[in-house]
Amino acid sequence: MADLQGVLDEIAAEMSERRDRGAVASYIPQLARVDPARFGIAVALVDGRVLTAGDAEESFSIQSVSKVFTLTLALGKVGDALWRRVGREPSGNPFNSIVQLEHEGGVPRNPFINPGAIVVADILLAGHQPREAIGEILRFMRFLADDDSIVIDHQVAASERATGFRNSALANYMKSFGNLDHSPELALGVYFHHCAIAMNCRQLALAGRFLADRGRSAGGHTVVSAERARRISALMLTCGHYDGSGDFAFRVGIPAKSGVGGGILGAVPGVGSVAVWSPGLNAHGNSQLGTLALENLARAMNWSVFGA
Amino acid sequence: MADLQGVLDEIAAEMSERRDRGAVASYIPQLARVDPARFGIAVALVDGRVLTAGDAEESFSIQSVSKVFTLTLALGKVGDALWRRVGREPSGNPFNSIVQLEHEGGVPRNPFINPGAIVVADILLAGHQPREAIGEILRFMRFLADDDSIVIDHQVAASERATGFRNSALANYMKSFGNLDHSPELALGVYFHHCAIAMNCRQLALAGRFLADRGRSAGGHTVVSAERARRISALMLTCGHYDGSGDFAFRVGIPAKSGVGGGILGAVPGVGSVAVWSPGLNAHGNSQLGTLALENLARAMNWSVFGA
Amino acid sequence: MADLQGVLDEIAAEMSERRDRGAVASYIPQLARVDPARFGIAVALVDGRVLTAGDAEESFSIQSVSKVFTLTLALGKVGDALWRRVGREPSGNPFNSIVQLEHEGGVPRNPFINPGAIVVADILLAGHQPREAIGEILRFMRFLADDDSIVIDHQVAASERATGFRNSALANYMKSFGNLDHSPELALGVYFHHCAIAMNCRQLALAGRFLADRGRSAGGHTVVSAERARRISALMLTCGHYDGSGDFAFRVGIPAKSGVGGGILGAVPGVGSVAVWSPGLNAHGNSQLGTLALENLARAMNWSVFGA
Amino acid sequence: MADLQGVLDEIAAEMSERRDRGAVASYIPQLARVDPARFGIAVALVDGRVLTAGDAEESFSIQSVSKVFTLTLALGKVGDALWRRVGREPSGNPFNSIVQLEHEGGVPRNPFINPGAIVVADILLAGHQPREAIGEILRFMRFLADDDSIVIDHQVAASERATGFRNSALANYMKSFGNLDHSPELALGVYFHHCAIAMNCRQLALAGRFLADRGRSAGGHTVVSAERARRISALMLTCGHYDGSGDFAFRVGIPAKSGVGGGILGAVPGVGSVAVWSPGLNAHGNSQLGTLALENLARAMNWSVFGA
Repeated sequence: MADLQGVLDEIAAEMSERRDRGAVASYIPQLARVDPARFGIAVALVDGRVLTAGDAEESFSIQSVSKVFTLTLALGKVGDALWRRVGREPSGNPFNSIVQLEHEGGVPRNPFINPGAIVVADILLAGHQPREAIGEILRFMRFLADDDSIVIDHQVAASERATGFRNSALANYMKSFGNLDHSPELALGVYFHHCAIAMNCRQLALAGRFLADRGRSAGGHTVVSAERARRISALMLTCGHYDGSGDFAFRVGIPAKSGVGGGILGAVPGVGSVAVWSPGLNAHGNSQLGTLALENLARAMNWSVFGA
Repeated sequence: MADLQGVLDEIAAEMSERRDRGAVASYIPQLARVDPARFGIAVALVDGRVLTAGDAEESFSIQSVSKVFTLTLALGKVGDALWRRVGREPSGNPFNSIVQLEHEGGVPRNPFINPGAIVVADILLAGHQPREAIGEILRFMRFLADDDSIVIDHQVAASERATGFRNSALANYMKSFGNLDHSPELALGVYFHHCAIAMNCRQLALAGRFLADRGRSAGGHTVVSAERARRISALMLTCGHYDGSGDFAFRVGIPAKSGVGGGILGAVPGVGSVAVWSPGLNAHGNSQLGTLALENLARAMNWSVFGA
Repeated sequence: MADLQGVLDEIAAEMSERRDRGAVASYIPQLARVDPARFGIAVALVDGRVLTAGDAEESFSIQSVSKVFTLTLALGKVGDALWRRVGREPSGNPFNSIVQLEHEGGVPRNPFINPGAIVVADILLAGHQPREAIGEILRFMRFLADDDSIVIDHQVAASERATGFRNSALANYMKSFGNLDHSPELALGVYFHHCAIAMNCRQLALAGRFLADRGRSAGGHTVVSAERARRISALMLTCGHYDGSGDFAFRVGIPAKSGVGGGILGAVPGVGSVAVWSPGLNAHGNSQLGTLALENLARAMNWSVFGA
Repeated sequence: MADLQGVLDEIAAEMSERRDRGAVASYIPQLARVDPARFGIAVALVDGRVLTAGDAEESFSIQSVSKVFTLTLALGKVGDALWRRVGREPSGNPFNSIVQLEHEGGVPRNPFINPGAIVVADILLAGHQPREAIGEILRFMRFLADDDSIVIDHQVAASERATGFRNSALANYMKSFGNLDHSPELALGVYFHHCAIAMNCRQLALAGRFLADRGRSAGGHTVVSAERARRISALMLTCGHYDGSGDFAFRVGIPAKSGVGGGILGAVPGVGSVAVWSPGLNAHGNSQLGTLALENLARAMNWSVFGA
């Protein structure tokens, strides 16, 4: 393996100098005021080492990166029955498109676009009060990262809810097709809270390590089977960056999931997980420099899953 | 490595017994009359060995599998300028959808859906008569497979043209947006001919081996750079099975491209290429048993790119 | 003029015998339990006469017919500024489609599809509490029909709200585009209540008479200008029957607006208004026998606006 | 009746001064070089009088106005069976949209959008050579206008064909759904030729007079039944101006059909027909000043079908 720490340091140094940082999400004040100059990266190797560079200890809103974890939890609950309510195809549309729902009877294309994640949240509600479901998700994150300091930013959750009319439209629309068991408000409550989890790159890389290690968590626990880890990774590769997923696979080649807070979590099978954060977004709503950093990292380390 | 020959034999044996073989394409007589009981598989390893099972020496119409090779040729001609005329995102639509073209100004989503491949054919026409462009493609296939017996089935090409009104609609539509340099008839002529190339599994696996071997062909020639081989593989994974691409990645996890003749070509990075053929198709127009065979093969050999 | 009373009697008699009555709306119990055998018709002539046949004195839920009246009120409030928030083109889609909203930035095609009427309700809320806005609409109906016995069926309104997830989706979606001034809940509250107004054919014909009489109400008051009456009638003709509007214009040729309760209100310029009610609906959600009755009436009386 | 000649003169005078004339169609040179300053208007009353103003004797390319006449001919040939292959709903889309065809199985929404008119041309080909079908259409126009000097501009037809890739896409697309009996080339040949008919306002008003006079032509012949005249008029009102039809009905209120050459033919039931021509087009592809002229005429003469 090349000098990974050196590569990370070089990437962090290069990213700190870039001017083309994209635009920070501005739809809620908590995201809008994040400093666009931030950049952090962390790698959690399957051998147990964790390497970081830049602002890897600074918390950010993981937003849609959380969808990887709620999907994992929901698959644990209902197994492949989940796929009767959510597809697993790339959407070919932005993250919040409602058109596809109309054409396809209220079944979202995949669990990583908003409506898909809202159905997953609805599944996690089964037999629970919203507070319990949210608590279960948070405990799962703490367990995976082996870090009890991870919290939900309730101000972010409240802001999301106050402005989340499009998500509310998506939830109500699916409810009208019978694809939510609970009320749109309850499912959205869970959804907005798990999107508001705050983590730093180190924590996020640790939490996602099981995807790269045949389902084993950083703490050595079996979280999912090796096959399920592969399958979740496949979904991340084909669907993890909304309508920029194809381009991300083409350029980077690492299964990864992005969030509008500027975070991206990637998993290199058998090697380790990587979390990167830079708040400025590209036209598809994915971290501009985070994508570039992963592209450079994959090239330097030959980490593309398509590489020989 | 597990006993690959044994695995292939077992898969061929199992597939010969399956009843759920899908439906053979019926839109032209040459495809409609193919025996649905056929099944062949071939693997071309990067160490030079070629292993086969079933009807691996029987020729079939490679159809859309040819799009991998015309894309490779066109990238060699115009490089990344190609991406100004074709996208690289999954389409979220069937192979011959025209809706996306209207919404996106005549630019096809990716080079593996029909309109994308017609643009690629148009690129290959530059400076050529159609006959020359078709000849160049055929020579490329022979060169890659190191086999001069590969031919075009002109009856298939003629039938495709006689019934290809939807492809003609797509070509004319893109022409109306200025995204074809030549007449729709000329571009379609090239397209219908390369789809009519006839090959057997052994030949197809050999021809596609460069994708698994950092761009080096079966004969040891550098066909493309390692990076380009990775990128073409990424496109195959995200876009190679039309609107069933996500499901294929989820179940199989091997970059692959299917054709309506029932063939699928896959590339396992650093390991080898695999060609499989079974004429019956599933609901997405991909080989029903070919997909299942690759799923079993990937599981048995741990060949998913998402595996640790 | 032919013997109008005789024509109405004949139509009512014929309709009572028809078996092809369509299907009663079943999405809320209050509509589902309406007797499909009902048929009523009433004509309010500009000369002051009112003629009826069948169950013309039986109240039904006017549902979307109310949109004609809320549009009239809203135009009185904000004039042509209304058209900055709602289009006036046929939708080419079902009444509750959300696709067009996505393509057209949250601006509904016309005021007679659900999202358009929700924007109109939002306009009527300006400066008002919901209760006041609803009261204003009800008073307007009573004034137009000169009948204080008209009421809102609050059970219907409550049922609509409890099951109205698709309308909630539409409202939230428009809110996300900034095309609602008030909260989706408030606008929907007004919308569900005006759809729940209960009237009989006699009352409805009287209420709509101003459209046929250059803007003058049954009571002799000027409700709108002659030009505005023409324009509202034009909208009824092109948009009054959702994606069955073209067919209705082709067969009947009278500007008219239908509701899912089985009512239709038509306006024959210079002649009079007509209200018909039969609860069974056709595939487009318009009254099956109501449409047929109006077709027969228009033919018998030469009331098509396209007739010489 | 108000002083019609005076009204026409006033309109022509006002239109000659307007600066906001829209943009002349530029997709073929024959249309692009038409002088945008032209304006003509003619009215053919059912009492036999013909009144004109402006450039009413100057020929222009009637383009899509011809679709009214080919529809009339095709209905005479196959009657209501035509509606099995073409709908009669407003399209809610531009004149050359292909999206709706995909969603609706190759059946165009109405006979006045391009794909609908191409199906109509296909119907007129039954049992004919293209030359004969084109000749029949031309003879029909001459018969209606009682004027043998009407011709087809073959240069226009040739230019349309040379650049008509989108229409070719539409025709091939419908052929792929089985909704053309003849080859796309043949149907397009008929279509391009009838769109290339050249007429002046006087001729066009005379040719369309049967629509306003219960089916009787200017020469006193019964062309269609009164009911069919009503129904064709209804289609003109709901579908005659592409996705600007609703707005035209709202503002003008006269059943009318526009063409990209700047002509519009309207029919006022029981009164007469009106042809107007001004080459500059608005955003929907309809004559900018032609629409305004008809709006002014309808208001001055109270000719809206929605007027009392």
